[in-house]
Amino acid sequence: MAQNLTRKILEKHLVKGELTPGSEIGIRIDQTLTQDATGTMAYLQFEAMGVSRVRTELSVSYVDHNTLQMGFRNPDDHRYLRTVAAKYGIIFSPPGTGICHQLHLENFAKPGKTLIGSDSHTPTAGGVGSLAMGAGGLSVALAMGGEAYFLPCPKVVRVWLDGELQGWASAKDIILHLLGELTVKGGVGKVFEYAGPGVATLTVPERATITNMGAELGATTSIFPSDEQTRMFLRSMGRENDFVELLADEGAAYEEEIRIDLNVLEPLAAAPHMPDRRVRIKDLAGMKVEQSCIGSCTNSSYADLKTVALLLKGKRIKPETDLLIAPGSKQVLKMLSSEGLIDPLLDSGARLLEAACGPCIGMGGSPVSGGVSVRTFNRNFEGRSATKDAQVYLVSPATAAMIALCGEFSDPAGWGTPPAKPELPEQAPDIRHLFIYPPEDGSKVEILRGPNIAPLPPFESMPARIEAPVAIKVGDDITTDHILPAGAEITALRSNIPAISKHIFGRVDEGFVGRIQTAGKGVIIGGENYGQGSSREHAALGPRYLGVKAVIVKSLARIHRANLVNFGILPLLLTNKDDYAKFTLGVSVTIPADEITPGGTVELTLDTGERIAVGNDLTAQELAIIKAGGLLNTVGRPAGS
Amino acid sequence: MAQNLTRKILEKHLVKGELTPGSEIGIRIDQTLTQDATGTMAYLQFEAMGVSRVRTELSVSYVDHNTLQMGFRNPDDHRYLRTVAAKYGIIFSPPGTGICHQLHLENFAKPGKTLIGSDSHTPTAGGVGSLAMGAGGLSVALAMGGEAYFLPCPKVVRVWLDGELQGWASAKDIILHLLGELTVKGGVGKVFEYAGPGVATLTVPERATITNMGAELGATTSIFPSDEQTRMFLRSMGRENDFVELLADEGAAYEEEIRIDLNVLEPLAAAPHMPDRRVRIKDLAGMKVEQSCIGSCTNSSYADLKTVALLLKGKRIKPETDLLIAPGSKQVLKMLSSEGLIDPLLDSGARLLEAACGPCIGMGGSPVSGGVSVRTFNRNFEGRSATKDAQVYLVSPATAAMIALCGEFSDPAGWGTPPAKPELPEQAPDIRHLFIYPPEDGSKVEILRGPNIAPLPPFESMPARIEAPVAIKVGDDITTDHILPAGAEITALRSNIPAISKHIFGRVDEGFVGRIQTAGKGVIIGGENYGQGSSREHAALGPRYLGVKAVIVKSLARIHRANLVNFGILPLLLTNKDDYAKFTLGVSVTIPADEITPGGTVELTLDTGERIAVGNDLTAQELAIIKAGGLLNTVGRPAGS
Repeated sequence: MAQNLTRKILEKHLVKGELTPGSEIGIRIDQTLTQDATGTMAYLQFEAMGVSRVRTELSVSYVDHNTLQMGFRNPDDHRYLRTVAAKYGIIFSPPGTGICHQLHLENFAKPGKTLIGSDSHTPTAGGVGSLAMGAGGLSVALAMGGEAYFLPCPKVVRVWLDGELQGWASAKDIILHLLGELTVKGGVGKVFEYAGPGVATLTVPERATITNMGAELGATTSIFPSDEQTRMFLRSMGRENDFVELLADEGAAYEEEIRIDLNVLEPLAAAPHMPDRRVRIKDLAGMKVEQSCIGSCTNSSYADLKTVALLLKGKRIKPETDLLIAPGSKQVLKMLSSEGLIDPLLDSGARLLEAACGPCIGMGGSPVSGGVSVRTFNRNFEGRSATKDAQVYLVSPATAAMIALCGEFSDPAGWGTPPAKPELPEQAPDIRHLFIYPPEDGSKVEILRGPNIAPLPPFESMPARIEAPVAIKVGDDITTDHILPAGAEITALRSNIPAISKHIFGRVDEGFVGRIQTAGKGVIIGGENYGQGSSREHAALGPRYLGVKAVIVKSLARIHRANLVNFGILPLLLTNKDDYAKFTLGVSVTIPADEITPGGTVELTLDTGERIAVGNDLTAQELAIIKAGGLLNTVGRPAGS
Repeated sequence: MAQNLTRKILEKHLVKGELTPGSEIGIRIDQTLTQDATGTMAYLQFEAMGVSRVRTELSVSYVDHNTLQMGFRNPDDHRYLRTVAAKYGIIFSPPGTGICHQLHLENFAKPGKTLIGSDSHTPTAGGVGSLAMGAGGLSVALAMGGEAYFLPCPKVVRVWLDGELQGWASAKDIILHLLGELTVKGGVGKVFEYAGPGVATLTVPERATITNMGAELGATTSIFPSDEQTRMFLRSMGRENDFVELLADEGAAYEEEIRIDLNVLEPLAAAPHMPDRRVRIKDLAGMKVEQSCIGSCTNSSYADLKTVALLLKGKRIKPETDLLIAPGSKQVLKMLSSEGLIDPLLDSGARLLEAACGPCIGMGGSPVSGGVSVRTFNRNFEGRSATKDAQVYLVSPATAAMIALCGEFSDPAGWGTPPAKPELPEQAPDIRHLFIYPPEDGSKVEILRGPNIAPLPPFESMPARIEAPVAIKVGDDITTDHILPAGAEITALRSNIPAISKHIFGRVDEGFVGRIQTAGKGVIIGGENYGQGSSREHAALGPRYLGVKAVIVKSLARIHRANLVNFGILPLLLTNKDDYAKFTLGVSVTIPADEITPGGTVELTLDTGERIAVGNDLTAQELAIIKAGGLLNTVGRPAGS
């Protein structure tokens, strides 16, 4: 039977279940990656499993989120990550080497392999035909221990690309267009598989921009075929041996199809404060811009930055507009350097930041109060820049560069001739000596822990009956950034659940923590797509630590739903979405927890007397995990607890 | 009469007083500089003076301390600095352009000119024969307004250099040697003027390392003659026109003399936690080192970093030792780039940070808990790295590079042949287009203020009789870092006195703020050299805001003493230093403030009945300022208050 690409990879890795969309499947994971902000917790969990060495083909621990090392906590975390990696057979990428997804694409991602990463933008590796998914840290820890990764079998959507990008339109504009069409909820439960004649016109870095930001659709992942472009990319990276051709079969079936004509795309932006708020750049002409940021796992490749350098060459940015540029990796920086392309950046007045996530996660580079910031990043959630009233627009690198030169949005028709698409060199510089490789025998490695690295607190199993007040009620599209903000100060607490929990919902409702601590317990009421965005499991762990028993919402984002299950919080879905209105802050909710069955419906009772039906989409295994108080209570406890 | 160099410049600029060591003089200031951490307050004060344009020959506003822009406060401050500079005729150097002292040396400092800067390392410009002094922000504001700068006429110490540096010894080792000889109190009231045959063997960047770190002696400043080395440096910087020869007269008199034989110097370190704890590198051999940091206004020149790049070339640092490198300016980075010297840094595993103060002021790059860190910086005060139990050693760039390669201290005898001293190119790249120059007419410039930029609170005049409890008692060598810590979080509050005051003595005694707020007032008891280190006037403004009326100490550092006067805090000196023991926390002190006369003695009464004699070294003018409640009450109030 003719198969699509996604199904081919899933079938080859299937260890449990059937490939029927919506049903639970377990797949074997070939590769894992972690980043520092989620990694410390993942490795604390991994340590608890009693496994002496990772059982994947390859596991890499990157440090790219909090690289600033403000105070002892952050460098202590980095040292912990380095030593735990050495002990268990994991490759370690020190801070400053680059952004995990960019580095993984350049150095490790392979066509046909499965990859999960404790970062929602792990699908970047789909640019070389890897089936790559974001996951909670605990899922990554389990995969490192050789366990299967469980997920609902996705629908496969064929995204058929016709034509070729014209003028100033770029790969970023393809995904901004798609987000405008489908919204941030449009991809839930789906894999976006790219096909059609337009595919061959896109280089791997361009494809990676698209699969990366496919995360914003809420998609399980996105994937491109592995073809001649892939071979050229891998050859340039010194890895032609990793190439295998991997295409969908002729006539393969898909659950859905979308068509995009690349010929007609034009430069786009996502307007504040959501990546799906598509708007044409020319329609924003005249709006003053205080800041332009170029980089992030979405747009920090050699080609992206060379394009920018050529646009800036010999020109000066407007003094009123700051331009910050962070390359994706030291390889990118070395390539720019070898072509004399650092000077044009510096001479333009741009700031050249270290290769890291940087401003994309609010780690520096915040805009001025109320400022307009254009960013080549993937998320423009309110407050994510760490300036609450900033207006962030997501754009392509070329657009960001031109806006820095103009000091405002302007019609691309006036930008002149767009620069030619940069070609990768035959042989890019190799930076693989910068990774720290584990010794063959890690048994003698001492794991070094700083005083801030706290073991996970124990969690009780679920009671038969839950009675808890509504601790917070939020609206639609709440992100994990809303639940737990990023930024250096808070991210430095990522390996200390009691400490970081004090910041839960801190930027949304300052009273939340005090309220739930007083009550000792609570439930969260949310709208559609609750928990979208970053994969940080602290957005489940923190609430759980504070006493959250259930989240009762209209719909849930995939990774956050898995994190809730993993840490024993009931994810309940309103049978009638209008019932959302019946919950008010402080009202007590009684949940007959012992009556809940997989996919079944139960009635909640409010202390107002109101009765409300809620369902769930849990599997029997997931429900058992929640009832046990979380996955850790079934597979082991983290070290030191 | 044969004159020394210092006296020549002072005489030419004298507007008040006589050049008798110890007596107060007022001098005309040709140039000023500010950095962001002290600059916002200085410009708020300048705004209040009603002057429409700066009256100096040149004033520059640099942003180099808090460049991270974590949250709105910091970028708002930068925008304020940019717009206030444009309005009043000041050159603005945006964040990322470089470190103020390095940039000033490269682009603006001139032989024979007077310069004051709101940063204690302003003496760096003494490397080209400028008489350059650190000062409080208010003093800089007054100088920008055309007022004279008042200081006690310094003694001039001739530092006679014989011979030439050998082997691995460097300019850094000259000043570390001198600090070991004289201690951090050894330079109070003195200018260190370098002379002798060794001078000609030192390039301007080497001289600047020495004058820069002369600040750690507590010196008024340090200065080198302007000679052929100076001409070569200025020519390389494209400023040969700024060269004038400037030498001490043959047979000139000096108040003191010190001799150093450069031939016998060897690589040194300053051990934790004071820059004068001199120790030989070879005596530390075998001590493991977790971190090496290269940069700061002391050692971030092209020559410093080229030396490092050549040492690292083709080698890999130890995985257990982090190496962080921050160039002093974009010019330095461009020079390294043009010679292909970025690659050796990146390939060694070093992190390349933006051109800024960075880890030197705890702005990232903190060591791990209890970690040993070698740094090419100027201060190793306890906690300044933002890791309280870190052990920081100050070393030269070559030493820092070799230690990163070794992973530990080792005997320089085993390091092989030292690299040749890098020569400046005939014509270094010009980055002066990166500064933002003010318009001819600034009257239409709108100054943009963020919500965190608070006007200075009003201060009352001094009462006739002060009765206040001892709010804190501290020991010798208390630095302004002890009084007010740096770091991104606290530095972001530098333009908001009420907010920043909550952090006064925060790392020394967490109870201080609560105690003085309860009492509403207090006095500070200190030992020798109270207030050494950074020039931050917030270390006076914050205590004043909290209610500190007097500091009663054994001796005071120069800049902090001036800041106390400027903000109306009585600086009292114990007549009998043993009386220090009689003060205990909370004991009430009565000061007959109206009986205090310049240089006179009064008796304090403790509520224990004890009577204690205290003197002062205040001039009549200074005493009048204090009695008025501070200089602002005599010259005007800052904007908006």
